[in-house]
Amino acid sequence: MRVLVFGLGALGTVYSCLLKNSGHEVVGLDLEPVIYKIEANGVWVEGIWGEHQARLDKLATDITDLADENFDLIILTVKSYETEEAAKQIKSLAGPNTYLLLAQNGYGNYEAAIRHLPEDRVILGRIIFGAETIDLGHSKVTVIADDVLLGSPPHMVETCFLEKLAADFSSAGIPTRASEEVMQFVWAKIIYNSALNPLGAILEVAYGELAADRNCRKIMNAVVEEIFAVLAAIGQPTPWPDAQAYLSAFYGQMIPSTAMHHASMLQDIKRKRRTEIDALNGAVVMLGEANGIDTPVNRTIVNVLKAKEALNQKVQM
Amino acid sequence: MRVLVFGLGALGTVYSCLLKNSGHEVVGLDLEPVIYKIEANGVWVEGIWGEHQARLDKLATDITDLADENFDLIILTVKSYETEEAAKQIKSLAGPNTYLLLAQNGYGNYEAAIRHLPEDRVILGRIIFGAETIDLGHSKVTVIADDVLLGSPPHMVETCFLEKLAADFSSAGIPTRASEEVMQFVWAKIIYNSALNPLGAILEVAYGELAADRNCRKIMNAVVEEIFAVLAAIGQPTPWPDAQAYLSAFYGQMIPSTAMHHASMLQDIKRKRRTEIDALNGAVVMLGEANGIDTPVNRTIVNVLKAKEALNQKVQM
Repeated sequence: MRVLVFGLGALGTVYSCLLKNSGHEVVGLDLEPVIYKIEANGVWVEGIWGEHQARLDKLATDITDLADENFDLIILTVKSYETEEAAKQIKSLAGPNTYLLLAQNGYGNYEAAIRHLPEDRVILGRIIFGAETIDLGHSKVTVIADDVLLGSPPHMVETCFLEKLAADFSSAGIPTRASEEVMQFVWAKIIYNSALNPLGAILEVAYGELAADRNCRKIMNAVVEEIFAVLAAIGQPTPWPDAQAYLSAFYGQMIPSTAMHHASMLQDIKRKRRTEIDALNGAVVMLGEANGIDTPVNRTIVNVLKAKEALNQKVQM
Repeated sequence: MRVLVFGLGALGTVYSCLLKNSGHEVVGLDLEPVIYKIEANGVWVEGIWGEHQARLDKLATDITDLADENFDLIILTVKSYETEEAAKQIKSLAGPNTYLLLAQNGYGNYEAAIRHLPEDRVILGRIIFGAETIDLGHSKVTVIADDVLLGSPPHMVETCFLEKLAADFSSAGIPTRASEEVMQFVWAKIIYNSALNPLGAILEVAYGELAADRNCRKIMNAVVEEIFAVLAAIGQPTPWPDAQAYLSAFYGQMIPSTAMHHASMLQDIKRKRRTEIDALNGAVVMLGEANGIDTPVNRTIVNVLKAKEALNQKVQM
């Protein structure tokens, strides 16, 4: 395959490096500082999947530099709040046989992508391994919770293609399966992140400490209950029958295995980066408003987190 | 008058010192470290009302040491979460002609006091000057927003006594008026504090910064609207017809004159002291529950603040 990796952050670095090393042609697109560094040093992955280095076939800082290229696959790794703009740019580039894989977090990426690209060419990924940036173009894979899942929520992408893609990724070293129910698993990750990530950023403690505090549990329970009410209203199932079943798995299995984890949003705030709250609790509030479900606890958490984000920007300006 | 000042913190120090210096007999009650320090150095007030020093007539560390005493007035300055226990102790001490003045913050002090003492002997104070502790028994008066108000919410204390007491305090140097509507003004202070104090402690910025942030305003607006809904349900008027009128005064006048102020709850948390959240937003949630009014934003703020309180205790243990 000829692959464009759109965004060479921690995740894009992993995909570009491992796909290149398994024999695909790989082009990378990102901002100048990233591209300059990768031009000099190549891409470099370490951690759980071992050490890998590669030179990509081409690097670009602007999508217009790729106007003459044909890609079989574009992997989009940008932040959720950049998806709409990226999808517009990809529309100008994608040929009739180009697939777009969304390898991002939160709700709204798929919805933004299909506003600009045909549904039978858009693949939703549920990525649940963790990679952190050591340096520009240099990532470390730190945790793998489960295989990557690939799917088309309206089942518009041919299953044989999804299975071929999953096999290609798996043989590149990224365990991947096709799934008929990818959206359920994307929501599972949204629920988990909505419960823990902003509260962990507001209180600046690890996930295990949140779960050990009875007032935090009240907040997380309410966040999850509101999300299940919204999902019921929009007819979106999850792997759990109800909020109670989710919370039982959340406290019983999910938290114990990530107890030492700190909120990525806290990192974002400290580094003065925008958080992805709009694609998590913010999306829940928005979907609730559109469907007559009040979500006051999610709304309050969004407002406190955004206030912290804005005030932190200011204090150190 | 023979006066017992129950609690010699910042406020109790001011009352005991100024009343003693205006010719009243004053006894002080507090824990050993406070009493030992005051035995050595007396009480000492500085700040807006000038510099004053006094030796009190008697000091005690246990109310049973005062069993043979007769007081015309007991001024209670303990934290709101200590009122119930203090009122029980005062019941054993108070004679038929002893008045109790509640000089505290938040909701629930009057309600706790009249569970133990006759309503015609309990006076509710609305104290809205600020005093901070320089050292044990040494206070500084830093701000005066308005006169102290004294009243009996059910109008059971004789007006002439309230007016005499207000005159005595005023001539001692603490401007004070009797009020028929003291509970309205106590609630005015509860609303102001509920909107600003916990959010200021969670975000660790001054009141003016909260008001300048649009997401903080959303939270504060919701906190105030929920409180007005609860007050409507319990039939408690305020000096404002509705939440909108309150918010207009809040942003227009109250915030600008206290923009540099930092949340006292943040001080409490940093010094590992318990906050008075239960007498502010916590009381709103409790009154809401008892009257069928949901207050999810106040509840979430209570839970985040209490989590911060508990987690801060733990981190530095």
